[in-house]
Amino acid sequence: MIDRLIEGIKKTGAPIVVGLDPTLKLIPEQITKKYFEEMGETPEAVAEAITEYNRGLIDAVYELVPAVKPQIAMYEAFGIPGLVAFQKTVDYAHEKGLLVIGDIKRGDIGSTSEAYARAHLGKIKVGSKEFPGFSEDFATVNPYLGTDGVKPFTDVCREEGKGIFVLVKTSNPSSGEFQDREIDGTPLSKLVAEKVVEWGSELIGKNGYSAVGAVVGATYPEQGRLLRSVMPKSFILVPGYGAQGGKGKDLAYFFNKDGLGAIVNSSRGIIGAYQQEKYAEYGAEGYADAARAAVLDMKEDIAQALA
Amino acid sequence: MIDRLIEGIKKTGAPIVVGLDPTLKLIPEQITKKYFEEMGETPEAVAEAITEYNRGLIDAVYELVPAVKPQIAMYEAFGIPGLVAFQKTVDYAHEKGLLVIGDIKRGDIGSTSEAYARAHLGKIKVGSKEFPGFSEDFATVNPYLGTDGVKPFTDVCREEGKGIFVLVKTSNPSSGEFQDREIDGTPLSKLVAEKVVEWGSELIGKNGYSAVGAVVGATYPEQGRLLRSVMPKSFILVPGYGAQGGKGKDLAYFFNKDGLGAIVNSSRGIIGAYQQEKYAEYGAEGYADAARAAVLDMKEDIAQALA
Repeated sequence: MIDRLIEGIKKTGAPIVVGLDPTLKLIPEQITKKYFEEMGETPEAVAEAITEYNRGLIDAVYELVPAVKPQIAMYEAFGIPGLVAFQKTVDYAHEKGLLVIGDIKRGDIGSTSEAYARAHLGKIKVGSKEFPGFSEDFATVNPYLGTDGVKPFTDVCREEGKGIFVLVKTSNPSSGEFQDREIDGTPLSKLVAEKVVEWGSELIGKNGYSAVGAVVGATYPEQGRLLRSVMPKSFILVPGYGAQGGKGKDLAYFFNKDGLGAIVNSSRGIIGAYQQEKYAEYGAEGYADAARAAVLDMKEDIAQALA
Repeated sequence: MIDRLIEGIKKTGAPIVVGLDPTLKLIPEQITKKYFEEMGETPEAVAEAITEYNRGLIDAVYELVPAVKPQIAMYEAFGIPGLVAFQKTVDYAHEKGLLVIGDIKRGDIGSTSEAYARAHLGKIKVGSKEFPGFSEDFATVNPYLGTDGVKPFTDVCREEGKGIFVLVKTSNPSSGEFQDREIDGTPLSKLVAEKVVEWGSELIGKNGYSAVGAVVGATYPEQGRLLRSVMPKSFILVPGYGAQGGKGKDLAYFFNKDGLGAIVNSSRGIIGAYQQEKYAEYGAEGYADAARAAVLDMKEDIAQALA
């Protein structure tokens, strides 16, 4: 799957993933209003609104980027109907040829991690039959429990040709509280990065990159530079660009000299572009076109950083 | 909620939580067979089987223990129907007066953690209305992202009177890979424990315990002893007893001198008791009675350890 991601990046020229993190504040009013009138102010109505909103976004960007990254928390927040909307979003992205990175940040002890891995990247086995699970192509994984919490994910990656991104250095302000602490002079995040290399060592694709990638926040470019060198064969999923403060010029640190090795996420900056002054001309009705314009601007911003 | 948990432990005399971690191997054949015949070998049939299995278990143990702990991965493994079974299990446990610890191990950056916190411990806000979420009483939380990933959970705990258990030292074999690494002579798990104290410092209940507890595995009793002393006002949720190898005599380390401060989880050891030689007399039909007998034996084992 990492090879399909690389092919997608080459084809579009955009090492960009669009974060589909819907909140009620981001969904244009004409969409929520329609479903609230039809179904009342209910989680089911929100789920329908999310689904329509996401379809509009996917239609607008599917030719421009290789992948989308729905953040499952934003769907789980609306209970079962929200998770149905998550499933529909994954399915629709696949229909349009997009890869899907499930931002699920799961991680548990062995047998439990296996359940998560099968749910999101594998198949549901029931007696003699198999059913699709949520069917993302990649998932984000929390490393705090160590190798036996990650191995079930890499096992499923091997079986199903899928990939993961392990949290190494997250984009949030307090990520350093534990991740930056030094163990014999080495930050914890670097120790995790070394494990990422180990976990992916037998899952190298034909383009030379491993199925085990890493999450490193755009908000920490210096650490991005260090971690890039520690994990030369791991793709880095870079959150924190745009709304969280990560800047285009800093992104170069996350890429390898081949121009590959990183994929940058933007969520609010794209899906809520119509609410920004810069794209205000599109209005709420033009939210999808505004998202498209924001993707094109982001593509240019990254190209300049890499030039 | 921590006060309700303490009252429940005092009333039952059992600092025990029953882990409701259903897998197809654990559910008695008469239950799966019934639903497979009716609905085919489908995730929907598994979900019905899980729901019936759990109801039988809850009916058998609700007067003996204060709480149950469904592991959401085992439900998520069966997709949307599995998560519906999770919801029904939480609701049925509540009907029977049990507290519910959602073993969800979520954790993300601020706004995303807030979505998880509201989904599991808070309410779903839709326009002017509020709906119940999954409505657990406690949730387990992963600390890797630091304070701003945990604070949304403690905020919701304050608003809703709920509680969390933060992963400090997990029960699995490779938990030491990162958690035991020493930072200036202090293991990472102890640094996390110190943060648990800080995060809970303004959420102390009337029994003197904080709404922010910790997860420390029964498989590491020496570390349990250390971490118990670091977090005197935090309840410790102790997984790893029984099937994972944790022994009764080691449990004393996790308790305070008041006989409180810990609640021990057993999952397979109770819900799959009927498959063990010791409880074989009950047979698959008597799985709930076998679970009841296993709870009583565990209660005795812990009482001896604390004597």
